[in-house]
Amino acid sequence: MREQVFILKGNIIFSKSRTELEIHEDSYLVCQGGKVKGIYRTLPFRLGGYPITDYGESLIIPGLVDLHIHAPQYSYRGLGMDMELLEWLETNTFPEEARFSDLEYAASSYRIFVENLKKSATTRACVFATVHRPATLLLMDMLEKTGLCTMVGKVNMDRNCPDYIREGTEESASETVEWVKDALGRAYKNTRPILTPRFTPSCTDELMEKLKGIQKEYDLPLQSHLSENPSEIAWVKELCPWAEYYGQAYDRFGLFGGECPTVMAHCVYSGEEEIRRMKENQVFIAHCPESNMNVSSGIAPVRRFLDEGLHVGLGSDVAGGSSENMFSAMAHAIQSSKLRWRLQDDSLKALTVEEAFYMATKGGGEFFGRAGSFEPGYEFDAVVLDDSRLKHPQPLDVKSRLERMIYFSDDREIRAKYVRGKRIEL
Amino acid sequence: MREQVFILKGNIIFSKSRTELEIHEDSYLVCQGGKVKGIYRTLPFRLGGYPITDYGESLIIPGLVDLHIHAPQYSYRGLGMDMELLEWLETNTFPEEARFSDLEYAASSYRIFVENLKKSATTRACVFATVHRPATLLLMDMLEKTGLCTMVGKVNMDRNCPDYIREGTEESASETVEWVKDALGRAYKNTRPILTPRFTPSCTDELMEKLKGIQKEYDLPLQSHLSENPSEIAWVKELCPWAEYYGQAYDRFGLFGGECPTVMAHCVYSGEEEIRRMKENQVFIAHCPESNMNVSSGIAPVRRFLDEGLHVGLGSDVAGGSSENMFSAMAHAIQSSKLRWRLQDDSLKALTVEEAFYMATKGGGEFFGRAGSFEPGYEFDAVVLDDSRLKHPQPLDVKSRLERMIYFSDDREIRAKYVRGKRIEL
Repeated sequence: MREQVFILKGNIIFSKSRTELEIHEDSYLVCQGGKVKGIYRTLPFRLGGYPITDYGESLIIPGLVDLHIHAPQYSYRGLGMDMELLEWLETNTFPEEARFSDLEYAASSYRIFVENLKKSATTRACVFATVHRPATLLLMDMLEKTGLCTMVGKVNMDRNCPDYIREGTEESASETVEWVKDALGRAYKNTRPILTPRFTPSCTDELMEKLKGIQKEYDLPLQSHLSENPSEIAWVKELCPWAEYYGQAYDRFGLFGGECPTVMAHCVYSGEEEIRRMKENQVFIAHCPESNMNVSSGIAPVRRFLDEGLHVGLGSDVAGGSSENMFSAMAHAIQSSKLRWRLQDDSLKALTVEEAFYMATKGGGEFFGRAGSFEPGYEFDAVVLDDSRLKHPQPLDVKSRLERMIYFSDDREIRAKYVRGKRIEL
Repeated sequence: MREQVFILKGNIIFSKSRTELEIHEDSYLVCQGGKVKGIYRTLPFRLGGYPITDYGESLIIPGLVDLHIHAPQYSYRGLGMDMELLEWLETNTFPEEARFSDLEYAASSYRIFVENLKKSATTRACVFATVHRPATLLLMDMLEKTGLCTMVGKVNMDRNCPDYIREGTEESASETVEWVKDALGRAYKNTRPILTPRFTPSCTDELMEKLKGIQKEYDLPLQSHLSENPSEIAWVKELCPWAEYYGQAYDRFGLFGGECPTVMAHCVYSGEEEIRRMKENQVFIAHCPESNMNVSSGIAPVRRFLDEGLHVGLGSDVAGGSSENMFSAMAHAIQSSKLRWRLQDDSLKALTVEEAFYMATKGGGEFFGRAGSFEPGYEFDAVVLDDSRLKHPQPLDVKSRLERMIYFSDDREIRAKYVRGKRIEL
């Protein structure tokens, strides 16, 4: 083995399947060349001599994946939550995002976001920036420095938003090309550009067409919003009377999965046809349960998505969600699925701890390729959790300790974090 | 002024009404003899010379009130959340509560609970213990030492629970009398016994009658559970066929408000008659939104309770709820009210920040008399919050800073805490 090898020791947990955990107590997790080599209860002779970090009683889990977060909104997380989606965009989002034309302000805001994301259990994220090319590149530079693995998008908006933040159609396309070229030119190791039309109401058909051209030319993944809120959906119907369902408003332009990896946030109200098409086109769903509560959207039928075999991960959706903490996102996913079962449709059973953990790791991780698991060959993203702050008088097994983490851990529990085999400085 | 006077300086916030905050920036909050004397922008001449603690930019709010928490369940908070109420009681609650017959175990468990409650923003709480008299007294001793102001109940259960935790009817009554006498004999300053029949399914009619006698003799408040979960309610109907609604199963024995202060947890499914009677009898409602999600109960119609002028406070309901953090309880109350509006009944508007804050302070505080406000004459319970950990690039007004606290503060923000004019050692 010429490639770099190192070994972590602790209580190792990852998803064996959507519904089952695989737990290796007091075992060795081996990284070779940035990938998972294997898990061993007793270290094989041939692995002797490589550096071992013994994390004792700590839990070692795959890094968490946030499939949907808005970096510029981090500054007002937890604020103005007494509004629904469209009012909230107008009142909070657009004025704040407009400030990112000022690079100095962008730096001061993104510094806080990046620092806190680094300290969290998140190792990978799909990130919305703003319409501004320089600030988006700045954010990418900053994220690259952390060692986290991210896809970051300059937002496109050429209609239905205030003048001060609206792009011309040509301008939006050409700025996107410039941004993509610039980003690719910087030869980041862990940071990739992702096409980011905000959502159908803010992008003209013409712009969508141009984005498809750019996507083809540069082979880019895409992120956007889908079927989040009843008023938004009604609006899309008005804007695209030809679309039988919201997803078609992307699909018509070839921006709904298929060749290019695509992730759509929310899908609270996706119906039969939309679900069928997402499945066919391997569209990833970013389920954002806290945001869906905070802006009064509703609760997505996640059990259905999982049963149908769709790709589902979790998103914090800051600032629709208040926190970048993906453990909270897991708890909110479980909690809201229970309310959905009770209040809306008792044919869809509530989500379990195992399922929430799956979505936050491998479910979302697959959007990045082989990430979110400790199966051999997966990229080595690991988070080491020291739960000793959370005292208990009785003995607890490893699964119970993981469950507690979901309900109340925060950055104080993060003892170490690795992305693609590199340790992140916390 | 012969009584002790001291003064805190900071950004003072409390509820002016159910729907409005009163905010005094950079002002003086004066405590005299354990009570609020007044708030001043400029300190009057006659208050010169008294000690001032300047908390600078910090927020100063009334101490938070937790109207419903189970101390022995703290050890398994965040665990076994994949069950509904009755299964969860059988699987988690009863086996764990049984261990409190062992005083040593009780001490090791309650130590953790008491320490964390002390470090939280909670200054007052209504606490369930277990059926065990010695462990309940131990808990009261421990809580008294913290300086927090609590009502604590030895639980009564003489039916429908496993042998190992079930009391005989006579035994339950006589142990209760012994416990009350012992507790009163200890002459606590801040700790009061509160009658605690667990809920109708676990108390026979005969025991309820005896408890009424004890309540009269010792003039005791009462806490219990009401209309939490559909299966529980159906069970109460079977057990008490004479009751037209669940509340009557308490009311028939005189244990549903009126003369003696009474707080009922949950009230998720309270109908017309139950609501009318709670109003008439001044029964307090402990709304426990996180618990109601976690054990799949549903969402209480809190907007309706508030509109009708009922007394409503918040409860963490650990371990149905995962955390003692009453800021989280406020966030959960707002979030679940939005889902209720969206999924169940759009005639009841979602709760606002102001309303959640009111419930967590004055709404619940009134169960303790004049607590939960900074109006003159209220008992001086105050929490000082340093929110500087939660960085932001833009200026934020005081109300926004409070709103952020609701969504993501934890014990790290608690800079100081006062109960009845005494500073608590954190």
